[in-house]
Amino acid sequence: MKLLRWGETGAERPGILDTAGVARDLSGVVEDIAGEVLSDTGLDRLRALDHAGLPEIPSGSRLGPCVGGIGKMICIGLNYSDHAAETGMPVPPEPIIFMKATSAICGPNDPILIPRGSVKTDWEVELAIVIGTAGKYIPEERSFDHIAGYCIVNDVSERAYQQERAGQWTKGKSSDSFGPTGPWLVTRDEVADPQDLAMWLKVNDATMQDGSSRTMVYGVAHLVSYLSQFMSLQPGDIISTGTPPGVGMGMKPPRFLKPGDVVELGIAGLGSQRQPVVADPAAEDA
Amino acid sequence: MKLLRWGETGAERPGILDTAGVARDLSGVVEDIAGEVLSDTGLDRLRALDHAGLPEIPSGSRLGPCVGGIGKMICIGLNYSDHAAETGMPVPPEPIIFMKATSAICGPNDPILIPRGSVKTDWEVELAIVIGTAGKYIPEERSFDHIAGYCIVNDVSERAYQQERAGQWTKGKSSDSFGPTGPWLVTRDEVADPQDLAMWLKVNDATMQDGSSRTMVYGVAHLVSYLSQFMSLQPGDIISTGTPPGVGMGMKPPRFLKPGDVVELGIAGLGSQRQPVVADPAAEDA
Repeated sequence: MKLLRWGETGAERPGILDTAGVARDLSGVVEDIAGEVLSDTGLDRLRALDHAGLPEIPSGSRLGPCVGGIGKMICIGLNYSDHAAETGMPVPPEPIIFMKATSAICGPNDPILIPRGSVKTDWEVELAIVIGTAGKYIPEERSFDHIAGYCIVNDVSERAYQQERAGQWTKGKSSDSFGPTGPWLVTRDEVADPQDLAMWLKVNDATMQDGSSRTMVYGVAHLVSYLSQFMSLQPGDIISTGTPPGVGMGMKPPRFLKPGDVVELGIAGLGSQRQPVVADPAAEDA
Repeated sequence: MKLLRWGETGAERPGILDTAGVARDLSGVVEDIAGEVLSDTGLDRLRALDHAGLPEIPSGSRLGPCVGGIGKMICIGLNYSDHAAETGMPVPPEPIIFMKATSAICGPNDPILIPRGSVKTDWEVELAIVIGTAGKYIPEERSFDHIAGYCIVNDVSERAYQQERAGQWTKGKSSDSFGPTGPWLVTRDEVADPQDLAMWLKVNDATMQDGSSRTMVYGVAHLVSYLSQFMSLQPGDIISTGTPPGVGMGMKPPRFLKPGDVVELGIAGLGSQRQPVVADPAAEDA
């Protein structure tokens, strides 16, 4: 199944993409794509519906982030050996984790807002895990039992804030709009091998990232188990698993986003995103 | 006003401590101590109530975290010059920020759970800011307009996870129970000077931390403004502003928490917390 959320920011309603590719409304069935709905039982209930009988979503509707009630967005750093190389950093001996503020999460096609004064806003196509069932100290062989499915995250990053403004990456990962999430939550039964998915990202039609989750250092099963040793995982938590090579800061000379650019990204089987880049309008008022 | 939340974990109800020190139920008045209730208008509405006429909370009720719907808990690192010295780290040139997973947040008197295999669980008494009104790019002279009030946070930290397990402090700050928050949200009108509050922490009746927010490097007004340059702030967000000296890792030899210990901590005017230390029962089952 491909689940989605649609409508205005902060007032999104649940939906589903049927097998013919038509987006349909789930408002009459569940309150949100969140919490218990993400459990195996909750997802089975949605599977059992007559999807073709659900009302169509009005064409032109905005897509929101494909999961609601996200308690935490945990990101993995330097998790592709070739990306680590382009940043000049060694592959870490165990996963590097950091948080993206949940206030940064937005819809897959919402604009990327360049923060006031920012000149180093960068892109990162990432495969994200959506937790479906709570867990703690999860053995690796049970990791998939806790996964509802997968989606795309663009882990938008301000490199000066991340690396030149005193420690801890959160600072460069958390501006509003820095977490486009979706278009769909694709349930795990539809992703045969999360470690073999093509991933791409273009800026203004020029390919910047062209990789595969094959070159991920710490894989999906390991990450869920590993993280759950340090914190409990809840339904709706998102784990964004790192990016393949091709980010702007790795280019010679570096290439960063500016208003007017358009970012498009996708992962095989998970759909695609498209974000116009604009100056943050709030930055003008302040 | 002193606002609180009481009842079982995950099902807390709103409450208030009246001027006679009696805890009273606000369930009939507001849904939670969260969101709009934290705005100046929301707080004024609670102020206007006849507090003595509200039902008393049953004695022996558990206190939950004093704020609900916490979207993010942002922590400031090394924000007391004397604490930085005891850790052997320089005072940072600008605030160091990191996130604590919101799943770590618990009531002020809930047990601290030692994670499986942990031998370096440590304490940190901290003055926390509770955001009342959303903002972004907040000028420093307007910071207080965005603050609902203050509370105590024990920024419980696993030092091996934080410092010896590959980059980024989140890993050592996010285990369940690592964020006791409360007992009360004290509204900002009752805190004459947040930069002049005595702070203390005891383990088994022995004083470990005995400091004051006077020695904070980056003060409350600066932190709200600073953070809002990197991410938007929302009602219910918590900023925990760092700890004075006296943490376990700074002792010679270091002293960490073990099951059976009791941690007590307080800040002048904000009440106190008391946490028994136990092994995480989930660690036994796994």
